[in-house]
Amino acid sequence: MPSYKAPVEDTLFLLKDVFDYSRCGNLPRFAEAPLDVVEAVLSEGGKFAEEIIQPLNRIGDQQGCVREADGSVRTPKGFKEAYKAYVDGGWVGLDGDPAYGGQGLPHFLGAALSEYVIAANLAFAMYPGLTNGAAAAIAAHGSDALKQRYLPKLTAGEWTGTMNLTEPHCGTDLGLIKTRAARKGDGSFAITGQKIFISAGEHDLAENIIHLVLARIEGAPAGVKGISLFVVPKRLVDENNAPGERNGVSCGSIEHKMGIHGNSTCVLDYDGAQGWLIGEENRGLNAMFTMMNAARLGVAIQGLALSEVAYQNAAAYAKTRVQGRALGGAAAPDQPADPIIVHPDVRRMLLEIRSFNEAARALAMWVALSEDEALESPDPATKQAAEDRIGLLTPVIKGVFTDLGFANAVKAQQVLGGHGYVAEWGMEQFVRDARITMIYEGANGVQALDLVGRKLPKDGGRALTAFFAEVSGFLAANQSDAALAPYLASVKSALGQLQQATMWLMQNGMKDPNNAGAASNDYMHLFGLAALAFMWARIAKAVLGRQAAGTSEPALDSKLALAKFFGQRMLPEAGACFARLASGAESLMAMPAAAF
Amino acid sequence: MPSYKAPVEDTLFLLKDVFDYSRCGNLPRFAEAPLDVVEAVLSEGGKFAEEIIQPLNRIGDQQGCVREADGSVRTPKGFKEAYKAYVDGGWVGLDGDPAYGGQGLPHFLGAALSEYVIAANLAFAMYPGLTNGAAAAIAAHGSDALKQRYLPKLTAGEWTGTMNLTEPHCGTDLGLIKTRAARKGDGSFAITGQKIFISAGEHDLAENIIHLVLARIEGAPAGVKGISLFVVPKRLVDENNAPGERNGVSCGSIEHKMGIHGNSTCVLDYDGAQGWLIGEENRGLNAMFTMMNAARLGVAIQGLALSEVAYQNAAAYAKTRVQGRALGGAAAPDQPADPIIVHPDVRRMLLEIRSFNEAARALAMWVALSEDEALESPDPATKQAAEDRIGLLTPVIKGVFTDLGFANAVKAQQVLGGHGYVAEWGMEQFVRDARITMIYEGANGVQALDLVGRKLPKDGGRALTAFFAEVSGFLAANQSDAALAPYLASVKSALGQLQQATMWLMQNGMKDPNNAGAASNDYMHLFGLAALAFMWARIAKAVLGRQAAGTSEPALDSKLALAKFFGQRMLPEAGACFARLASGAESLMAMPAAAF
Repeated sequence: MPSYKAPVEDTLFLLKDVFDYSRCGNLPRFAEAPLDVVEAVLSEGGKFAEEIIQPLNRIGDQQGCVREADGSVRTPKGFKEAYKAYVDGGWVGLDGDPAYGGQGLPHFLGAALSEYVIAANLAFAMYPGLTNGAAAAIAAHGSDALKQRYLPKLTAGEWTGTMNLTEPHCGTDLGLIKTRAARKGDGSFAITGQKIFISAGEHDLAENIIHLVLARIEGAPAGVKGISLFVVPKRLVDENNAPGERNGVSCGSIEHKMGIHGNSTCVLDYDGAQGWLIGEENRGLNAMFTMMNAARLGVAIQGLALSEVAYQNAAAYAKTRVQGRALGGAAAPDQPADPIIVHPDVRRMLLEIRSFNEAARALAMWVALSEDEALESPDPATKQAAEDRIGLLTPVIKGVFTDLGFANAVKAQQVLGGHGYVAEWGMEQFVRDARITMIYEGANGVQALDLVGRKLPKDGGRALTAFFAEVSGFLAANQSDAALAPYLASVKSALGQLQQATMWLMQNGMKDPNNAGAASNDYMHLFGLAALAFMWARIAKAVLGRQAAGTSEPALDSKLALAKFFGQRMLPEAGACFARLASGAESLMAMPAAAF
Repeated sequence: MPSYKAPVEDTLFLLKDVFDYSRCGNLPRFAEAPLDVVEAVLSEGGKFAEEIIQPLNRIGDQQGCVREADGSVRTPKGFKEAYKAYVDGGWVGLDGDPAYGGQGLPHFLGAALSEYVIAANLAFAMYPGLTNGAAAAIAAHGSDALKQRYLPKLTAGEWTGTMNLTEPHCGTDLGLIKTRAARKGDGSFAITGQKIFISAGEHDLAENIIHLVLARIEGAPAGVKGISLFVVPKRLVDENNAPGERNGVSCGSIEHKMGIHGNSTCVLDYDGAQGWLIGEENRGLNAMFTMMNAARLGVAIQGLALSEVAYQNAAAYAKTRVQGRALGGAAAPDQPADPIIVHPDVRRMLLEIRSFNEAARALAMWVALSEDEALESPDPATKQAAEDRIGLLTPVIKGVFTDLGFANAVKAQQVLGGHGYVAEWGMEQFVRDARITMIYEGANGVQALDLVGRKLPKDGGRALTAFFAEVSGFLAANQSDAALAPYLASVKSALGQLQQATMWLMQNGMKDPNNAGAASNDYMHLFGLAALAFMWARIAKAVLGRQAAGTSEPALDSKLALAKFFGQRMLPEAGACFARLASGAESLMAMPAAAF
């Protein structure tokens, strides 16, 4: 049976030593959240994840969700009780708006905690995760009446939320959406159509489910400019905000998926279901993107979380499984064999995972802190810089964290050999669960195109310029620090390649947009490597600072070792990314479609 | 539902145009196998795979194998009938020894056909695959009496075979084996112990199962030098070679695995089961390696086969799924959207897979043809060169083909987006099935160590020297061919990096064996890239030759496009491999075990 320990210490290290938590003190939400409160919340949340949610992870995988003959869906044994405890603990609305009953804690805290909950049980975590996303979209774009009706229950987690985009014939290309919305005359709409792949679409955890649905109002223009967003409750809500009769939406079937079996992925049939417009007519994509951007950061954290839990279990195995001898001679001559952690190649796999995890946690934290700045900073320049950073880094971390999170789960599984392939050790579930993160909320190829095609050129490249300036500024400010030099050298090299790649894109993407498309995946990964290297340099600086101040802890030594490993063993990939992207689109476009 | 078309044309192209089939004419088995016979066998076998075996692939995954209360195991619906048809068609003994009823066709033909059968249904293919391996081990090391008793039925496929190595506490390190063999006094042994992860360990396809079992004879030396190999039939065989009463071996349980559900992976309990020694006492590992080396080539082909079938289905989807528009403007303006094959990043995924598949097929064919030369060549030098080549390339192709085969199945799944994640499209099964190939028959880390630690230094590096000479010879012989120049340049670059890496290993591996261990995975992959580049150059030469002779076929143009793609988009990884391995072991060994 796999186990999990929430990395609370590492989260706190990042907050205190790397990101200088105190500098956020001017933000209103942070006044409520001094470091001791943050520490208490993280510890409690970590314990909840470890003790209540993680033990349900394998059960959830084995039992899956079951659709009954009446169309209701039963979640795996224990999910209902755990979800109730999660709601009762106030975890759903941790960073929710106090105006609707939320606790009003900083958003980064919600993000940090979500890592623990996801690592414990991704399928479970998706229920509150989607609920937060739905609440955010209603909060940003809904009328006051809609907010009053839905936000208190969603913030409490008493009701859950969903996102309804995909239809059988349309996924990435939402312009093809066929679901129709007919005016009922009372300001509401009758929604008809079929949605597929709807996570948490039907279940028994909450008394109501609030579906956010993209549909086309009769007479709307074709394509994405004719899509509107609606809120469609599973049960219609009366004037006292109590759920009453069933609306015209039902679960037609549950998809049989590779993983995340504990989350019900539904085909939802809308048959004249009553819905209410969120935001403006035909501006539904815009409203949905509020939900989707937050969801993309959430999915990035999923990649990290699964990588972390897979690492923990693989490392534990490698330290206890005895098999063979160290190459340089027996390490444990009193035992029949040495623990496999003596082998360089076993260490390689573990270090590749961990040198990602700790830097990725820092990068996610940086983006999450930027969310708080973007929402609350009184300084317009800080606000804009934070928004730019989030916009630029969201596709990078969604794509890179989930590609590497999956690859890391596979590596962790490999450490266990044959035992990694059988179900009882739990490693193969991490692989199956992690696989979806590369696909949903925009497949990673779409993230790469979003980065190259939209985020780079936006506002004349302002966000990218600011990112380069921030990294260069760090390099310049620390150039005389000899102890930091090797870590800075890694950043400098990766940054140089990223700048070169950007130049290549500017010169060649205009000439032929296929050059941009052909470069996009490598550019995204090169960006990810550079950003992670930057995080390692910032971590190394924090570690060296503490060591210079007299702290001596093995954990600090490990961080420097990981930072070095990252530079020597992970960054070489950046050169390969650059070489591939600089080869252009020609070799990709040469073969006619029929020849594939 | 996924589909499959056996790549018979490509196999024939390799035989005729790349490997000059006629030059094998001096080998006895090839006299029976002129090209028209080979073509007929491949076509028939391909048809059998497509029509009889492939339709059972999803059923096998869904139903899995079921252990009944009496310990018998039921295979999925249809497997029994299909296996009988496979036996009746003579497919099991295609390249079997005519002395025992085999058809005596060349071994490469068995390898080529196995690709089709595996691609159609890996779980099914493992039953005859293991049978062939068991027969080979008995043929190479068994007494005449054992051969007479077991080979006719194994060659016919009426009985199937297994390999019993792993025990709960021992996988890679076979020196830890605890299963005991007690002398019964009549020359046979009583085998007692528990084996796990035994593929095809119990089933209802054949009337008997012949287990090859590693065990320790009472009083044998400790470690690997005290391991012997035994043949232990499920049913004892009487003097007329008819299976009679049950032997003391039974299936304790079936493992719940990530994939290959159609193959029964068993815990086998041996309780004084009667067994007979194969080969010499305490030389069991040696005998088992005969089976294992053949099995490793077989597993390499599994990586290729799953990559091929995953490609076929992803390419078909990409050509028919319409979604979004080409970056340079609509490609199919009369349709609501363009097929996604217009997107460079979709093409990237497909081309990465296919540029591997076609070169990997060539490399597997080269090794398989070498098997025929090694077994049958009348010329001692040819024989030795072939044995050297097989020994050197076996760990390379096992490790590289299965790492990339799995990665390719993942990429193919990605092409389908959300549809790749649900079961009905079959893509996620390819991923789950392919995952085991990186683990069994020696995890890929073990392959890399075998390459670096054993195969390189063996016989003073003779095999490697010969490989370098062969590649360099090809480069020299074709240096004036201007049309071939770009493909030769790729080979030259990869070969140079491989030679540099070899030099680095020689200089640093001696100093510290951890340097060799730390380099092993990257060295193996660098080797694979160089060998695949060499295959692309040979393919390109064959294509250019046919084009110069006036043949104009789109398939030939595609091969040149794929060869170029490989050079531009796959080979950059070689530089990253070299940079990583040349960084040495230090960053891997720095952290103490407790810090992981």
